[in-house]
Amino acid sequence: MGLISIHGDHPLKDGRQSERALAVRRGMQRLLADMRHVSLPELSLPTGRRADLVTISDKGEIWIIEIKSSIEDFRADHKWSDYRPHCDRLFFATLRDVPAEIFPEECGLFLSDSYGAEMIRDAPEHRLPPATRKSMTLNFSRIAATRLMHAEWASVTLGLENPNQD
Amino acid sequence: MGLISIHGDHPLKDGRQSERALAVRRGMQRLLADMRHVSLPELSLPTGRRADLVTISDKGEIWIIEIKSSIEDFRADHKWSDYRPHCDRLFFATLRDVPAEIFPEECGLFLSDSYGAEMIRDAPEHRLPPATRKSMTLNFSRIAATRLMHAEWASVTLGLENPNQD
Repeated sequence: MGLISIHGDHPLKDGRQSERALAVRRGMQRLLADMRHVSLPELSLPTGRRADLVTISDKGEIWIIEIKSSIEDFRADHKWSDYRPHCDRLFFATLRDVPAEIFPEECGLFLSDSYGAEMIRDAPEHRLPPATRKSMTLNFSRIAATRLMHAEWASVTLGLENPNQD
Repeated sequence: MGLISIHGDHPLKDGRQSERALAVRRGMQRLLADMRHVSLPELSLPTGRRADLVTISDKGEIWIIEIKSSIEDFRADHKWSDYRPHCDRLFFATLRDVPAEIFPEECGLFLSDSYGAEMIRDAPEHRLPPATRKSMTLNFSRIAATRLMHAEWASVTLGLENPNQD
């Protein structure tokens, strides 16, 4: 699974996120970059739920992509419809060995691995009210900038390449 | 000057950004965090100019803070007023050994070092038109998320703490 499997002690390999879920995320991030969507993982919503991946297109369209790495992972989530009011389109993303037919038709679907992803089914559009789009975009920008600042501080401490430098 | 001076080969120490300017930025980021503003350095504006520090408050207010590390640095910038149409308030930030009186009264002013900063003069407010605020916030969010994704990929490659992990 490429980069994510060579470090057995990586802090993301805890109980919350499996290596399989991270592979899906990595592949999705590659495809999304090609689609001119930027993405932010693990964004908390006003409801308290945390979206696996929130994306914003160059036009400001907002997607939520829920990553399900197994049948059990999908079946354990009884509240996925709670994400819909916070995005223009709602998708699932999974791996090729998870049966595509378990995912609801009213959501889009991506198949992904750590090298890339493809869209199997587009999602219906339900345009966000302007106030919700504004608050989602503001929250996205503030969380991304905060994490980036901490990443920069860590990079300076460690003498690494600075993420804010071209 | 704390963290930024211990790595002589840090890539930010090129001709474009002096150690003094980085100290100002670091101190400003600390103060801004206390003020509930998130900040993003080196953000390109639609005019092609690059703002030293763009901030967004928890209410969505946008500031631009131009960092001037010396008298010469300020005098070399004949176009600072070009930043004003892209923010609600425009500030300069400098070091204590730069005379505060060289900075224009119609902008706010911070004094900063790598440990922290203080506001010497607040800036007049000129509220952005909604469309400009929307496009600035969108651009901010997309650049922050893109840099964060690259920082995450670097952290995974290096087996470091992931900036997207709490």
